[in-house]
Amino acid sequence: MKLYDYSKSSAAYRLRIALNLKGLDYEKVNVNLLHGEQKGDDYKALNPQGLVPALEDKTLYTQSLAILEYLEEAYPQTPLLPNNLADKTQVRALALSIACDIHPLNNLRVLKYLTVDMALSEEQKMQWYHHWISEGFTALEKQLAETAGTFSFGDAPSIVDVCLVPQVFNANRFKVPMDAFPTIKRIVAQCETLEAFKLAHPDA
Amino acid sequence: MKLYDYSKSSAAYRLRIALNLKGLDYEKVNVNLLHGEQKGDDYKALNPQGLVPALEDKTLYTQSLAILEYLEEAYPQTPLLPNNLADKTQVRALALSIACDIHPLNNLRVLKYLTVDMALSEEQKMQWYHHWISEGFTALEKQLAETAGTFSFGDAPSIVDVCLVPQVFNANRFKVPMDAFPTIKRIVAQCETLEAFKLAHPDA
Repeated sequence: MKLYDYSKSSAAYRLRIALNLKGLDYEKVNVNLLHGEQKGDDYKALNPQGLVPALEDKTLYTQSLAILEYLEEAYPQTPLLPNNLADKTQVRALALSIACDIHPLNNLRVLKYLTVDMALSEEQKMQWYHHWISEGFTALEKQLAETAGTFSFGDAPSIVDVCLVPQVFNANRFKVPMDAFPTIKRIVAQCETLEAFKLAHPDA
Repeated sequence: MKLYDYSKSSAAYRLRIALNLKGLDYEKVNVNLLHGEQKGDDYKALNPQGLVPALEDKTLYTQSLAILEYLEEAYPQTPLLPNNLADKTQVRALALSIACDIHPLNNLRVLKYLTVDMALSEEQKMQWYHHWISEGFTALEKQLAETAGTFSFGDAPSIVDVCLVPQVFNANRFKVPMDAFPTIKRIVAQCETLEAFKLAHPDA
């Protein structure tokens, strides 16, 4: 398998964690977002969206959450979704609340558009960033306080943890105060004791 | 089943289409986003995120894409995902490219934050809106030109169409020129001949 990857991309970070949790071997192909390689002809021929990650496993797949579902069906070892349909739906909803309602507002291309194209100041960019993290994490903290055991949903890692850890890494880079989110902090600390999460870390 | 709904919410519109396609009966509970009912204590007790839609089917479920997966597993009639894993992954990726990369940047709460809290002008708001639609639809047009038959993926409606029609409805409200997206236009026109899509329309 070949992962089109960028170390600090939260969406790529999700897949590194999932691949590690499932014990799958993969080759990383670096697509440097800061140098704009994702917008180059070579990469756009593979993925017209010009976004990372993409995963090649005979076929080329895009969109991290679609790829997590793919991995779950193709490689069921170390399941990252519960079996029971009600639980599975709740786990998907928690992961999507990060992937649809927090991450898309705060990723590199959006922050760049705000400052470069819309000419907002660095301070306004930070106001924007902190607002959406704070709104998203406030709801998530409340939900996780009910669903969490050792991990976000019960006592095994799931796609919620796979999405949560990169989002918190990102929030920390932007110095978002985390004191109001004790459950989130506790879960992330727990995840980070696992080899699969350590090896997926952008600094690794 | 009870759908917590708002007529113009794109995410709720997705579920109205899917429920109709599957021939499922449901009661609509209107949550008026313009009056801020989604942030009221009553609704937030149900859904801490304070977002629509939510679907009650014994359990309360949130996040439209998680609910689409739920409906697919609980009510497999009129499948909205292909059987084959590679195809299914591609369909999920196309739906997610709308749900994660277009819609979250352009929904009501985001546009309101840009103008009210960040004090951007109406013109800047429109620049922002048009930029993300145009970037998203340009990639999608290229992808759909390869995957579409009568509908977005082959000749049966799928979750891609379920996400596409509300997004195009939204783009039309904001007067985004659609001439560069002939495949998207053709698919939406085709969908809109079906009763399930007609009855789900915000004006219906």
